[in-house]
Amino acid sequence: MIDRYIVLVAGGSGTRMGTAVPKQFLPLGKSVVLMQTFMAFYHFSPDFKFILALPENQIEYWKELCETYHFDLPHEIVKGGEQRFHSVQNALERVGESGLVAIHDGVRPLVSADTISRCFAEAEKSGNAIPCLKVVESLRETGEGWSRAVDRSKFVSIQTPQVFRCELLKRAYRQPFEPFYTDDASVVENLGVKINLVEGNVENIKITSPMDLVVAEGVGKGLR
Amino acid sequence: MIDRYIVLVAGGSGTRMGTAVPKQFLPLGKSVVLMQTFMAFYHFSPDFKFILALPENQIEYWKELCETYHFDLPHEIVKGGEQRFHSVQNALERVGESGLVAIHDGVRPLVSADTISRCFAEAEKSGNAIPCLKVVESLRETGEGWSRAVDRSKFVSIQTPQVFRCELLKRAYRQPFEPFYTDDASVVENLGVKINLVEGNVENIKITSPMDLVVAEGVGKGLR
Repeated sequence: MIDRYIVLVAGGSGTRMGTAVPKQFLPLGKSVVLMQTFMAFYHFSPDFKFILALPENQIEYWKELCETYHFDLPHEIVKGGEQRFHSVQNALERVGESGLVAIHDGVRPLVSADTISRCFAEAEKSGNAIPCLKVVESLRETGEGWSRAVDRSKFVSIQTPQVFRCELLKRAYRQPFEPFYTDDASVVENLGVKINLVEGNVENIKITSPMDLVVAEGVGKGLR
Repeated sequence: MIDRYIVLVAGGSGTRMGTAVPKQFLPLGKSVVLMQTFMAFYHFSPDFKFILALPENQIEYWKELCETYHFDLPHEIVKGGEQRFHSVQNALERVGESGLVAIHDGVRPLVSADTISRCFAEAEKSGNAIPCLKVVESLRETGEGWSRAVDRSKFVSIQTPQVFRCELLKRAYRQPFEPFYTDDASVVENLGVKINLVEGNVENIKITSPMDLVVAEGVGKGLR
C-alpha cells in the first residue's frame, strides 16, 4: 500500500464572509466546516496521512475547537505562509518522496467519495489528476473598459482535491513563486507536465459566502 | 413612465434534473419555480408587462398549474422556438418599439431587487446592462486532449435579467441565428454595441441540478 497524504489548506480570515470567525471554523452540521472536510476524507479511507496548513495565529484556536468537539482525528499542523503557495510548500516538507499527495481546500467539506476516488485513481495511473465541472453560466472575458462573450463550452471550473505523485508535486514546489499560480495544477503545469482532468461533484463548493453555508447545511445530509 | 417588459424564457425539459417534470415547474416555496420567478419581478414593480415563452407542449400544463395555485399575475404566453434564440424572437413580437425589455431565465427565482434595479438603471442610461459576478473557482480552457490554466480574474460569469432598450434588442434579434449566441448580450454585441456590466447577486442561480433546488429553498426565505 502506497502512502497517501491529504494536505488541507485553510487560509481564510473571514472578511469575505462578513464574519469575525474565519470561514473554516464556522459551525456546520455537528461540528465546524474544517472538521467536516477532514471527515469526508477519513470516511473514504482512515489510512490517509493528514497535514493541516493553518495561519499561525489560528493554531491555538483550532486546538481549542478540537477539544470542544472531541475531534481526535490524527493530523500534523504546519504554519501557513504568506500565500497559499507557501502554505503548500510548508506542508510538503512533511510529505515523503513516494506515494500520492492530495491538496484540498479546507472549506470544501462536500467533496464526494466518487470525486476522491476518481482523483486518486487517475493520479496513480498518470501522475496527476484534478477534478473539474462544466461551466453552467455564460462567461465573459473582461479588461479595462471592455468585455467580450467567450464560448463557455471551452472552459471548465476547477475544484480540489488536486492529486499528484509526491515526487512530482515536491519538485514543482521547488520552483520560485509566480503570481500566475492559481492552484497546484498550475504550479505543476509550469514544469511542462500535462494535467489530467477528472469529473468533480457539483456539491463540492468552496464555502466563501453566507449562502454557501446554507447550501452546505442543506446538501450535506451526511454531515456528522 | 416608460414601458418595461419582462420576458421569461423557460425552455427546460427536465432531463438534466433527472426528473420527469421540467425544472421550471418543480415545487419551490408555496408554488413552483417559475411562479417564484414571476413574483420576484412583480414585487419589485407591479407595472411590468410580462411575457412568458414556453415550449408549446407545456402551455396547457402551465395553465393548469396556474389554476391549482390560484396564480393570476397577468402575462402573455408565446410559443418557445427550437433554440432559446427563437423563443426570445417570438416574445419580442409582443414588445413595443420604445421602453426597456428584460430577458430573464424562468429558472432564476432568486434574482434580488438590487440586481433588477441596477440592470434597469444602467440600461435606461446606456441602452443595455447585464448582471455579472466574479468567478470563484479556478478556470481552465480546454480542447481536444489539452487544457491550460487561465487567469480567472479576467473573467466574469453572466446572469440574467439582461436589459435592453426595446428598439436595440428587437434590431439585434432581426439578425439570423448564429450558434455562438450564448445569451442576449452576445446577440446585441454582434451589432457592434458595447455591453455594460453591473453587479448581480450570488443567490441568483440558475436551477439546473437537484442541489440548486435545495439551495433555493434554503436561501429563498422570502419565497411566497
